[in-house]
Amino acid sequence: MIDFITLCDYVGTFAFAISGIRLASAKKFDWFGAYVVGVVTAVGGGTIRDVLLNATPFWMMQLSYLVISGLALLFVLIFRKYVVRLNNTFFIFDAIGLGLFAVVGIAKTLEFGFPMWVAIVMGTITGAFGGMMRDILINEEPLIFRKDIYALACVFGGLIYYICVCLDVPLYFTQFVSAVSVFIARVVAVKYHISLPALKGEE
Amino acid sequence: MIDFITLCDYVGTFAFAISGIRLASAKKFDWFGAYVVGVVTAVGGGTIRDVLLNATPFWMMQLSYLVISGLALLFVLIFRKYVVRLNNTFFIFDAIGLGLFAVVGIAKTLEFGFPMWVAIVMGTITGAFGGMMRDILINEEPLIFRKDIYALACVFGGLIYYICVCLDVPLYFTQFVSAVSVFIARVVAVKYHISLPALKGEE
Amino acid sequence: MIDFITLCDYVGTFAFAISGIRLASAKKFDWFGAYVVGVVTAVGGGTIRDVLLNATPFWMMQLSYLVISGLALLFVLIFRKYVVRLNNTFFIFDAIGLGLFAVVGIAKTLEFGFPMWVAIVMGTITGAFGGMMRDILINEEPLIFRKDIYALACVFGGLIYYICVCLDVPLYFTQFVSAVSVFIARVVAVKYHISLPALKGEE
Repeated sequence: MIDFITLCDYVGTFAFAISGIRLASAKKFDWFGAYVVGVVTAVGGGTIRDVLLNATPFWMMQLSYLVISGLALLFVLIFRKYVVRLNNTFFIFDAIGLGLFAVVGIAKTLEFGFPMWVAIVMGTITGAFGGMMRDILINEEPLIFRKDIYALACVFGGLIYYICVCLDVPLYFTQFVSAVSVFIARVVAVKYHISLPALKGEE
Repeated sequence: MIDFITLCDYVGTFAFAISGIRLASAKKFDWFGAYVVGVVTAVGGGTIRDVLLNATPFWMMQLSYLVISGLALLFVLIFRKYVVRLNNTFFIFDAIGLGLFAVVGIAKTLEFGFPMWVAIVMGTITGAFGGMMRDILINEEPLIFRKDIYALACVFGGLIYYICVCLDVPLYFTQFVSAVSVFIARVVAVKYHISLPALKGEE
Repeated sequence: MIDFITLCDYVGTFAFAISGIRLASAKKFDWFGAYVVGVVTAVGGGTIRDVLLNATPFWMMQLSYLVISGLALLFVLIFRKYVVRLNNTFFIFDAIGLGLFAVVGIAKTLEFGFPMWVAIVMGTITGAFGGMMRDILINEEPLIFRKDIYALACVFGGLIYYICVCLDVPLYFTQFVSAVSVFIARVVAVKYHISLPALKGEE
């Protein structure tokens, strides 16, 4: 089980880093700048969570996150021409990462003794704020605020997590179901173009 | 006294959230994105303060701040057409919030054992950095850096706080006078169009 | 030795604040807004480092950093016309600050018991993320991601630090050599227009 979770974690980190590096490259950032944006996209959400929880940021405990982001940079450098064709693959990887990150954020917050609603907020931050920081760094309006169901998929997964906890579902199964819910919500939303209405401006 | 303070806290939170939601709606953010911007505007300054003080962010201790931000979203959704007419009301609410937030920031920092100058900085951060984070999220140059007297009103209130402390004024009266000073400084600055000169660029 | 280090620290703080204030003035920020940008540029990198290390931000322990940023504001206000002519001087000051900040970040992180690779990351954050926050505040794409060798000079200095540690070089000499390496890397990169290639966008 641990191995499968670790794999999903790395797949998600890779996909998040790729998305940061690609958007940075569209802005003509240099290699190192693109790498920084990739890292921030991959670990930014979890870092904000850990700072708010007053925990040591997770990526400072093991080198793998920076290494995987480096591999993502290499991947984009080497397979530049083919990256576009892999859009669907990256989308799936990204959705896997979103689901896993959300559940990791929820579980960690509950371990720290916070109530469920804080955990759901932290799951959403873990999943979605890396992309938000990416968009701030490349000076664009955050996509997550206008794009299909993204952050909201994390909230949905959090509610599923809560229901499972109320029903005394075993922990691992709760986490599995919750992560899969995020994944499905995200995939279904994109496939059927489901999105929240925009708030019409009055001014 | 507690009740009056709590009321002001909620009024300020509501007004700050409204300002975030309105600016997000002008950018065509979706409902959830607008809600996130509203929450960040309302609790962002206090969160930075708490992170710098190494305290658990205040909004993670009670649900009310997220709920009030949700009410602000509902309010904007329902009373869309009338929101503009309420500009003056929101301005007053916002100024009340600014005064209260600044004083809360000062008091909490002093409780943590920091000297007065740190407390004044933290009061200013509590009052003004939520608006700064809002402007970063919607990808605009921060308004507080160019608009009338805003952050500076918090500094002014901090100096009043300091003078009261030096004069041995009772704590509650000190806080009341300080918050009112921020409020008045803000209202007078806007009413009489008082603002700091812009720094002329040389390059 | 302490005195020389403190001097470099102040020189770096002054130069970083000047760069923030000048870019803010180009955006017509008011005096206080420009001051805030100056302070964030000067202390922002070290603040992120301290938050990640779970330490009290360094500038909250002594008033000097805010005072030096205030002097930088005064300097820009008074010598507005002559500031452009001093570009080379500011560049040297900035490079001195970069070297010192990077080494301070590395040393502090090692004191907290983290491994060398975390220290190198923290040195880079200390040196380069103040400028990144400056660019976010003034709503520009971060320069450090596209400009010559900047953040990478900090990484280079960190590697030199690591080599010195492996060779059992005395601590003060290690720190001196490391800071000088950052300085030289930065100056050489600018003088000979050495920069990383931009990542070509594929989309």
